[in-house]
Amino acid sequence: MQIAKTLDELRNARQQFNEPIGFVPTMGFLHPGHLSLVKRVRLECSSVVVSIFINPAQFGPQEDLVDYPRDMGKDLALLKACGVDLVWAPKPETMYPGGYQTWVEVDRVSKPLEGARRPRHFRGVATVVAKLFNAVQPQKAYFGQKDAQQAVVIRQMVKDLNFPIDIVVCPLIREIDGLAMSSRNVYLNSNQRQAASVLYRALKKGQSSYESGERNAKKLREVIIKEIDAEPLTHRDYVSVAHPDTLVELDIIDQDALMSMAVYIGKTCLIDNFLLRNGNWHTGQLTGEPEG
Amino acid sequence: MQIAKTLDELRNARQQFNEPIGFVPTMGFLHPGHLSLVKRVRLECSSVVVSIFINPAQFGPQEDLVDYPRDMGKDLALLKACGVDLVWAPKPETMYPGGYQTWVEVDRVSKPLEGARRPRHFRGVATVVAKLFNAVQPQKAYFGQKDAQQAVVIRQMVKDLNFPIDIVVCPLIREIDGLAMSSRNVYLNSNQRQAASVLYRALKKGQSSYESGERNAKKLREVIIKEIDAEPLTHRDYVSVAHPDTLVELDIIDQDALMSMAVYIGKTCLIDNFLLRNGNWHTGQLTGEPEG
Repeated sequence: MQIAKTLDELRNARQQFNEPIGFVPTMGFLHPGHLSLVKRVRLECSSVVVSIFINPAQFGPQEDLVDYPRDMGKDLALLKACGVDLVWAPKPETMYPGGYQTWVEVDRVSKPLEGARRPRHFRGVATVVAKLFNAVQPQKAYFGQKDAQQAVVIRQMVKDLNFPIDIVVCPLIREIDGLAMSSRNVYLNSNQRQAASVLYRALKKGQSSYESGERNAKKLREVIIKEIDAEPLTHRDYVSVAHPDTLVELDIIDQDALMSMAVYIGKTCLIDNFLLRNGNWHTGQLTGEPEG
Repeated sequence: MQIAKTLDELRNARQQFNEPIGFVPTMGFLHPGHLSLVKRVRLECSSVVVSIFINPAQFGPQEDLVDYPRDMGKDLALLKACGVDLVWAPKPETMYPGGYQTWVEVDRVSKPLEGARRPRHFRGVATVVAKLFNAVQPQKAYFGQKDAQQAVVIRQMVKDLNFPIDIVVCPLIREIDGLAMSSRNVYLNSNQRQAASVLYRALKKGQSSYESGERNAKKLREVIIKEIDAEPLTHRDYVSVAHPDTLVELDIIDQDALMSMAVYIGKTCLIDNFLLRNGNWHTGQLTGEPEG
């Protein structure tokens, strides 16, 4: 496994790889969710490139950039064990040198949900992903359904800017009690950790309600909200039932839908979602279980 | 010479080309300035791709999008005679389909000069060039020094977003009386056309003043302004002596400088510039003369 720090090192290494090249951008502190993406690339592509870069541009001034968990040694060992060909781990000054001034903005789909709480977050995400794509030049890039809105923003950007890259969105991976895997779960103390499974239970309630015939999106949101609010450690940010491509809130669920939420537990904001496509629910995959 | 209209046609054609691919983006209505770029690509690259696309996103609401001159038949004949391999002429709805919402903004260098008169112009330019780059995937792309600020914006974008493309900026081409070639020169009536050579004469005065030892940028601007204002048909927009990479106005010219201006003649806004780099003036090339 090669490790590149500079753009030149990356490009020199890349030239030796067979195509298709599959790419997984990460911020490190890898968990089984990340590794599920990497393993899928290994199966589907000739070469596997993973980036590890904690992107300052996607953190707000009050957010956890400084505290964001890091463990490069463990990350590299995990990636090596997955058969990764190249890890790109640029420094912040490589990605944003003095005089840096270019931003990619995806307009409408960046505004609601996470974008409402984090006003410049998706500008930072779109920009760094555009940079990573141009640097790595993969044929396919893999993202997790955990960050559902991020996947929508990236897909829209790739379509709008004509990037010659296939975007593959992979199932969310859950802990045994249903909590969506996230590098930020380490912020939770044991009481909070126990309470955190309420997001999954609430989404399950929403799904059950749909499967019992409920098609009124407001009613579904109410079912979810009731479950969240029953857990005293939670503080809701949003609960959404929206179109999965435009992220416009739905009145009636007549076709596809993204049921998503952000919920604070203490100072930690957790997100989760179930996706309804063509009549099938994509609810993620519990650890140790094959996808159903 | 192949002609592609859709992205699929472009990509299918592109796959057959030898690299390096050189690319010239244009808005059509080609003149010797454009053709000088195309001829240079033919010399330097294995394959030559030219796009013809009048980009709505770079026109302001009060600007000349509808009236912008067009002559596709003549353009194609000229490009064929230059040995172009592929012309990409997408429709507006191919470039900006329903739901389009992604913008590339280069911040500081987009703001002064042309950007002050045309607030969203360089957002439109950067966005369409990013799209064209991703669609064509050239190794080298060629721009004219005529649009000096555009070249600065594109170079900054390419550096910031890590596009794997070399940007080549080629000399401005002038009519025999010094008027910079531009598709918009057709808007001038014969009196206006005669008056229009004042831009070149004014830049020449600025250059002479510099060569006589003047290093005060304000004094140079005054010399240029005096010459422009002596021509009654002109109405000045800006006269600038700025750093050629940051476009920040200079006090003292101690190294490189971009001397540029925008001048209305009637309703037509003409732009022109001389570039000072490493002690050498790049003043463009009069028709029929080899570059000095």
